[in-house]
Amino acid sequence: MNLKNDLIIRAARGEQVERTPVWLMRQAGRVLPEYREVRKQAGSFINMIKTPELATEVTIQPVDILGVDAAIIFSDILVIPEAMGLPYDMIESRGPWFEKTVATEEDIRNLHTADAGDLHYVIDAIKLTKKELNGRVPLIGFAGAPWTIFSYMVEGHGSKTFSKAKKFLYTQPHLAHQLLEKITQSTIHYLEGQMNAGADLVQIFDSWAGILSPEQYNEFSLRYIAKICDALKAKKETTGKKPIIVFAKGAFFAREEMGKLNCDAIGLDWNMDITESRKLIGTSKTLQGNMDPCLLYADLPTIKKEAEKMLREFGPLKHIANLGHGLYPDIEKDNVKCLVDTIQNFRFKS
Amino acid sequence: MNLKNDLIIRAARGEQVERTPVWLMRQAGRVLPEYREVRKQAGSFINMIKTPELATEVTIQPVDILGVDAAIIFSDILVIPEAMGLPYDMIESRGPWFEKTVATEEDIRNLHTADAGDLHYVIDAIKLTKKELNGRVPLIGFAGAPWTIFSYMVEGHGSKTFSKAKKFLYTQPHLAHQLLEKITQSTIHYLEGQMNAGADLVQIFDSWAGILSPEQYNEFSLRYIAKICDALKAKKETTGKKPIIVFAKGAFFAREEMGKLNCDAIGLDWNMDITESRKLIGTSKTLQGNMDPCLLYADLPTIKKEAEKMLREFGPLKHIANLGHGLYPDIEKDNVKCLVDTIQNFRFKS
Repeated sequence: MNLKNDLIIRAARGEQVERTPVWLMRQAGRVLPEYREVRKQAGSFINMIKTPELATEVTIQPVDILGVDAAIIFSDILVIPEAMGLPYDMIESRGPWFEKTVATEEDIRNLHTADAGDLHYVIDAIKLTKKELNGRVPLIGFAGAPWTIFSYMVEGHGSKTFSKAKKFLYTQPHLAHQLLEKITQSTIHYLEGQMNAGADLVQIFDSWAGILSPEQYNEFSLRYIAKICDALKAKKETTGKKPIIVFAKGAFFAREEMGKLNCDAIGLDWNMDITESRKLIGTSKTLQGNMDPCLLYADLPTIKKEAEKMLREFGPLKHIANLGHGLYPDIEKDNVKCLVDTIQNFRFKS
Repeated sequence: MNLKNDLIIRAARGEQVERTPVWLMRQAGRVLPEYREVRKQAGSFINMIKTPELATEVTIQPVDILGVDAAIIFSDILVIPEAMGLPYDMIESRGPWFEKTVATEEDIRNLHTADAGDLHYVIDAIKLTKKELNGRVPLIGFAGAPWTIFSYMVEGHGSKTFSKAKKFLYTQPHLAHQLLEKITQSTIHYLEGQMNAGADLVQIFDSWAGILSPEQYNEFSLRYIAKICDALKAKKETTGKKPIIVFAKGAFFAREEMGKLNCDAIGLDWNMDITESRKLIGTSKTLQGNMDPCLLYADLPTIKKEAEKMLREFGPLKHIANLGHGLYPDIEKDNVKCLVDTIQNFRFKS
């Protein structure tokens, strides 16, 4: 099926676009009253992501309500550890919680290398969403980067320092690589499955990139992201045709290296200067981002002014507008809508 | 009184040193069983910092036990908001908690501009520590950077995003500057008081630097740090003679600007590449840091190897060895001792 709005796909490939496209990380979420209603009925977050009809409904909401240029499948990066054998719970206002964690070689051996079949509920949600979207906008699939998934599997929950996960890297680097390799293979199968089910592009989220030293980041994160990109791009006629976006929060120190990844776009967080990032990453990649989500607490004229400033700084080509992090739940919907409208109404003078 | 070991002072000034000096952020803390013993007897953290005898005891412990090249006065950056009229509590394993926070112009007007007299318990602890140290090593005083103090005063507690504090910057920038100015004046008085009481150098901690955009950082943080440095350096015969270290965690984007501060040394966190930081900051400043605290979970040969690698990368001049963040409480004391010993035993080949 042809896409009626393929701006994001073209922007990701570096092709000419009539205007800068926009989507927002966590656009399907608590910022929308319509989402909160579904969430209440669903009972739990996990139930929502495991029920394709519910996941589809909230995935499409921001396309209807905010008018964004892409949908992103409503799911969670932690479905991968679950599919590998570590179930988790999402505890209200505390975040994810794993009962079992990974500490020994035996723990790693006992983990299953997941495939798309283990995650049929996400695959089904993608198929259903594609059908319901009916070509209106592209659908983005996603997965966590292996290092970020690793850090939850070892730590068992969110953490300011993830010192347990980092201790594992320093004390058992050989085992760390074994686990990262197993996560990487699972993630390749999973993203292939998403693309084959209809995802038009995918994003890899490295949420905890920023807690590693530059050297550790190269050794324990970037090489596995590279493996995923290479594996997806290698199948030239299928997954290889679809854009990949890599967003590594806080990995300012890795921007130059990230420019060499076999991917199409690099996400920037709001700490990263746009001009400097372009210089470090090079001209071949599309950049995505990078407004501070907190800016959406400001009044509408400020949001408009800052959004236009950002657009001018990125320039008319090779930019997908987004935030530098996910939307915060207490942001006003009208402010989000103002951001989206401003970006979509903006035109570069030719 | 002359210092028997003034390596850190000389290193901060860029003078020749026989070996690289070392101290560790949070060296007076839970990593030492001796500290935990005092803490238990004291009953509460707040009681410890308000009782000069107890503060002195734990300040000197790491000099005796770890053999570090400086003591840092045991206190807390949040004594400033308390002195300005916002008392707080330290809740076990949750962190600081303010009952009152700042939201309006009236709230700011009602705040008191603190002076050293309001913080007599810290001043007394410094005098007592200087006496007890008897010139063995220098004593470091400290304060939080105005932006970091501001973020607690507005948010009321720790936070991953400090979105309430950042919202304040975007929605009420004029009021934000009023509050930052009041904090800045209080901090100048406080650091002057510490220096006049005997602190041989001071460090300004900008713990939440990393959550601001580069532009916001310049406007709401760096200019106030600059004001503090300028005020202290202006009194050439007193405070102006004592080194100032600025440590802004996560402010990788501000390194070039920080090179222009009227201070002596810049602290680096472990995300910051040493060679790149030297290039950005320039050659005039001493650099401090920057080992990943998680490295101290590794085995002793790894700690030794990585410490020596760090020393070589910084080079023999203008370096004060430290971590890139505070010590974590569950690190083994022997590992910390190994780090300190390695640094103190290392010699550059001439």
